[in-house]
Amino acid sequence: MNMDIYLDNSATTKPYPEVVEYMTQINEYTYGNPSSLHKMGIEAEKVVKNARDIIATSLNADKDEIYFTSGGTESNNLAIRGFLNANKRLGNHVVTLKTEHPSVLEVYKHLSENGYTVDFIDVDREGIINLEQLREVLCERTALISILLVNNETGVIQPIDDIIKIKNETKKDIAVHVDGIQAFGKIKIDVKNSGIDLLSMSSHKIHGPKGVGAVYVNKKRKVNPIIFGGGQESMLRSGTENVPGIGGFGLAAKITFSRLEENYCKVREIRELFLSGLKSGIEGYRVNSPGEGSPYILNVSFQNVKSEVLLHFLEQENIFVSTGSACSSRKKSYSHVLTSMKIPECDIEGAIRFSFSSFNSKDEIPYVIEALKKILPKIRIKRR
Amino acid sequence: MNMDIYLDNSATTKPYPEVVEYMTQINEYTYGNPSSLHKMGIEAEKVVKNARDIIATSLNADKDEIYFTSGGTESNNLAIRGFLNANKRLGNHVVTLKTEHPSVLEVYKHLSENGYTVDFIDVDREGIINLEQLREVLCERTALISILLVNNETGVIQPIDDIIKIKNETKKDIAVHVDGIQAFGKIKIDVKNSGIDLLSMSSHKIHGPKGVGAVYVNKKRKVNPIIFGGGQESMLRSGTENVPGIGGFGLAAKITFSRLEENYCKVREIRELFLSGLKSGIEGYRVNSPGEGSPYILNVSFQNVKSEVLLHFLEQENIFVSTGSACSSRKKSYSHVLTSMKIPECDIEGAIRFSFSSFNSKDEIPYVIEALKKILPKIRIKRR
Repeated sequence: MNMDIYLDNSATTKPYPEVVEYMTQINEYTYGNPSSLHKMGIEAEKVVKNARDIIATSLNADKDEIYFTSGGTESNNLAIRGFLNANKRLGNHVVTLKTEHPSVLEVYKHLSENGYTVDFIDVDREGIINLEQLREVLCERTALISILLVNNETGVIQPIDDIIKIKNETKKDIAVHVDGIQAFGKIKIDVKNSGIDLLSMSSHKIHGPKGVGAVYVNKKRKVNPIIFGGGQESMLRSGTENVPGIGGFGLAAKITFSRLEENYCKVREIRELFLSGLKSGIEGYRVNSPGEGSPYILNVSFQNVKSEVLLHFLEQENIFVSTGSACSSRKKSYSHVLTSMKIPECDIEGAIRFSFSSFNSKDEIPYVIEALKKILPKIRIKRR
Repeated sequence: MNMDIYLDNSATTKPYPEVVEYMTQINEYTYGNPSSLHKMGIEAEKVVKNARDIIATSLNADKDEIYFTSGGTESNNLAIRGFLNANKRLGNHVVTLKTEHPSVLEVYKHLSENGYTVDFIDVDREGIINLEQLREVLCERTALISILLVNNETGVIQPIDDIIKIKNETKKDIAVHVDGIQAFGKIKIDVKNSGIDLLSMSSHKIHGPKGVGAVYVNKKRKVNPIIFGGGQESMLRSGTENVPGIGGFGLAAKITFSRLEENYCKVREIRELFLSGLKSGIEGYRVNSPGEGSPYILNVSFQNVKSEVLLHFLEQENIFVSTGSACSSRKKSYSHVLTSMKIPECDIEGAIRFSFSSFNSKDEIPYVIEALKKILPKIRIKRR
């Protein structure tokens, strides 16, 4: 097979050709600044409005509850810090998971240096939140719970309904922020009926352009800006709107949501094929992803293997994977996600994240399995 | 003339076709996440590195002094707030101009609510900083001076060398931040030889994509991040890099800087033609822009005219202009820039910003002058 096999879709996805074409059109014909009063400004504003409508509809939100940002990281920062800043009376205690994305963990690190107490809840061996511990830590001072809905390394899905139920039984006005970056466009999210107050999204994880994201803010909740200026995005996010990016994000969401279930089934089949391929021909591995997680992510540890070595051998076969999350793959520490799941160090060392998208096909999987069969015996470390 | 005449280039510019084509190529072939360890990540990183080299060279900076952001507003926020946060020992007094862009003024409003004292220096009738007043306000507590190099409403250029000289005579370690958003790619800036510590840039003002900017940070200065996460951009700006946007910005800078003087001369001729057209056929106007300012901006007040009415009449003739800065044009208050220049209210009411780019041609100007001749008598308010 001469084609590239891209199995790093949780790091980023290839944009839809329709999205790229639409952005080119916007750059050519709708290049105005939405703040300009003339028709070129108004046409640019329509692009933004249209995208906002699509994102809102996809979440069952109102359109004035969607704010565009420069990406998922900014969305997480805005949702968490902007909410806490606007709601100081709610308290200075925040709760999150040990297995969050760095863009949440680093925010909490910053907050804990600035007067906030942060509790990091444990997860079980599948990576699922310890609900009893959650119930115990919630208190009068708790202002916010932040939960990564689909974990970017393993695909584990947190029981958001249970979390919100416990929150409501303890202190109803605690806000719930959902980092939906790996969930949006992959599993159904209904913000209106779920009780989610804040939700972060990213465009480039759903075949949209990089450099664009959004945050949903329930209209009963107040969030302060974290970037100040001309007052765009209803005063919440200043800066000239990235019109082609936002338009591209909207179109990517439109396409993705029109095929949500179809894509889900397709990717699930790919994942199952992968798992049975492993079962039938590979020895010494363990699946770190839970059976009931997102089918888009499959985290597998290969015993007596250094994951980085395996990654580069797979690369030689034009197969592209990740050793963990792309965001932290340049750091030389062990995955905090797998560590929190109490996976033994020797298994974390050999962990590879295969992440799929609807751009993958079942035909690719036998080739990947064959490549693993060929590579693994060569690179396995002989332990004494 | 059936063509659109776009004279709102200070609000935003049309991207170069080469830039749009390059971004399409990146979206098609170089869509990896720069943090990914495999070749698709490395290729994406090369795009970013290449753009960084171009921007650095264009400013006479080192490449590790350039950090990409989501745009000019974020650059201003990062430079000012990030610097002050990292340099609290320097003091809590900051100095800026009354005529800054909202993305600076709003930052200072935020800072003044958070323990900082801010002095807003007056400008003269041409919009130039009062240097004596600057000298007077600088003190031991001063940490930062922030200066809009080319004003976005009038094109006035601040005497940055004099400002830095005064600063060095008073307290050498005060940092100088330059909002270079309307200057970058239009007038030459040499950060190494000027003594500028921090400089903000935006891509979409130089025919690059929207949603991308950069900040120069002199390597002797420390800046803290304002967005936390995976640690991209040497820990200063987290979030997956907007690879096509950054690549597009780099190419736009490359093209722009290769034609800097040629463009400058072309635009200056257009502006001069415009001015002589006004002189020869229009009555009751005043030029608010200084003679020695950036040729890219021409701010003119038409007496007994409501600028918004004139804007819409010009729009009918397919001529697109602005009443002030695009960022604040949706607000119903008078321009703070023209007010600070002590331009009479009746003249501010009729102020229009014509802003040019190398995409304009001299042929367009006679048509605009004819349109003004036709429109003005119709819309002039008869004062009693």
